[in-house]
Amino acid sequence: MRARAKSRFSLNQWTTKRWSVAEAVDGCVRHGVEAIGLWRQDVAAQGLKETVELVADAGLRVSSLCRGGFLTSGDPQALDDNRRAIDEAAELDAACLVMVVGGLPGVVPGRPLGAISRDLPAARERVAEALAVLAPYAGERGVRLALEPLHPMYCADRAVLSTLGQALDLAESHPPEQVGVVVDTFHVWWDPNVLEQIARASGRIASYQVCDFLSPLPADVLLGRGVMGEGVIDFTPLTEAVAAAGYPGDIEVEIFNAEVWAADPDEILARVRSSFAELIGE
Amino acid sequence: MRARAKSRFSLNQWTTKRWSVAEAVDGCVRHGVEAIGLWRQDVAAQGLKETVELVADAGLRVSSLCRGGFLTSGDPQALDDNRRAIDEAAELDAACLVMVVGGLPGVVPGRPLGAISRDLPAARERVAEALAVLAPYAGERGVRLALEPLHPMYCADRAVLSTLGQALDLAESHPPEQVGVVVDTFHVWWDPNVLEQIARASGRIASYQVCDFLSPLPADVLLGRGVMGEGVIDFTPLTEAVAAAGYPGDIEVEIFNAEVWAADPDEILARVRSSFAELIGE
Repeated sequence: MRARAKSRFSLNQWTTKRWSVAEAVDGCVRHGVEAIGLWRQDVAAQGLKETVELVADAGLRVSSLCRGGFLTSGDPQALDDNRRAIDEAAELDAACLVMVVGGLPGVVPGRPLGAISRDLPAARERVAEALAVLAPYAGERGVRLALEPLHPMYCADRAVLSTLGQALDLAESHPPEQVGVVVDTFHVWWDPNVLEQIARASGRIASYQVCDFLSPLPADVLLGRGVMGEGVIDFTPLTEAVAAAGYPGDIEVEIFNAEVWAADPDEILARVRSSFAELIGE
Repeated sequence: MRARAKSRFSLNQWTTKRWSVAEAVDGCVRHGVEAIGLWRQDVAAQGLKETVELVADAGLRVSSLCRGGFLTSGDPQALDDNRRAIDEAAELDAACLVMVVGGLPGVVPGRPLGAISRDLPAARERVAEALAVLAPYAGERGVRLALEPLHPMYCADRAVLSTLGQALDLAESHPPEQVGVVVDTFHVWWDPNVLEQIARASGRIASYQVCDFLSPLPADVLLGRGVMGEGVIDFTPLTEAVAAAGYPGDIEVEIFNAEVWAADPDEILARVRSSFAELIGE
């Protein structure tokens, strides 16, 4: 049984991307942060067992492990890799494994198009098929998969799930303890149905992630995530809807942003905590 | 009564952006193109009366006038400007006036954020209010307003209407001959509900615009529109759905793209006609 949270603020590790897992854990302790969202490649670099120990010794909750997914290719290796991700999430006692489901088969983020499939419904169907295999596997290990709808500008290269409604349609074939959804303000703020869909997601919200949406977007749209208050999102209705839907978990700040990544991580952590206290809650 | 189209291909003038109205009209005649989509600023540069004459002498249909809109500020001058746009569309006998409804109040495309409103529902409400004023004005002049949902990546700075469903919700308060919608492949291809919404749009489709969605997106996401076949869109289901919904009008090729704009407009026109014949129809 986990201790009741005093603070629901969680540091997604890539907000302070220059920090290793050990440094990020130290940073959390130094700043009184109780939860952390980890990335698989950083966990691998630190070592899974060492990460488990570091997190336990620091008394941190692991609010998410990022990420599984990329299921649209139909490649059996993708399933194996996701099983490994689930095993890692179990070891880390992560509240969920974030699933970025993948784009159109053959499309590689940031690379010129080669041979691709343009069959979007088929790509979505492959996600459903893969999920039918992975959800029971996750369930057996006590891991919750968290389907993340990504902003529609990533539909081709990262996620053929673009709306919370779509993610819920897919999740609802599975028990809520096996498959939930991520509500990430950056990805869903524009959706005219977002508040209804957050209400519908009651019992399915596995992660609430916050950051702002920058305008204008930077040259690399992946880095269009800003510190809360520096973009265009009105956080209050979204945060209130997530609360009304009964989500009790940590709230992760996840910012991909060249300026943020170039700055001193301690300063960034202080800055996002302050912005979080002002715009999200404590 | 207009002559029955032999070819439904229409050149949106900004596909050959270096051409003035006169040059684009000449280009259409030279290439056997029967319809053109015009832009207000280019029409103004050519002169409205002269444009009317040029188009009539060439026997071209005007498939759209781009564009009215930017209605979210609540500024009364915006209504006046839209009334002028409606008057121009009437003079040009344009099949519709394309409406890009505007983003969050205060957000200027391409400019750093200053004082803005983040109240997205309120911005949408202002569009509905402005439309209640403009639709009857357009109706009196035989002009059809065409609400264009823009890709959600433009929600903050260009259009708080992001889906065809949203545009139809708004259009349905008005007679179909006064308010229709634009189906633009670039903006809607990702939408999980797009085919149902195109079917729902029967009788409301005022314009069908085609271009591809590039991946990766260029640094300026406004220029992410590609020649059909060079991006990620599967055009056939969209074109078939638009046909099944009974849309009888021209199909406009509208490409904003730095490489396309830098090339010889005659070559571009030949290239997009060829791509159109292959992927869209004739």
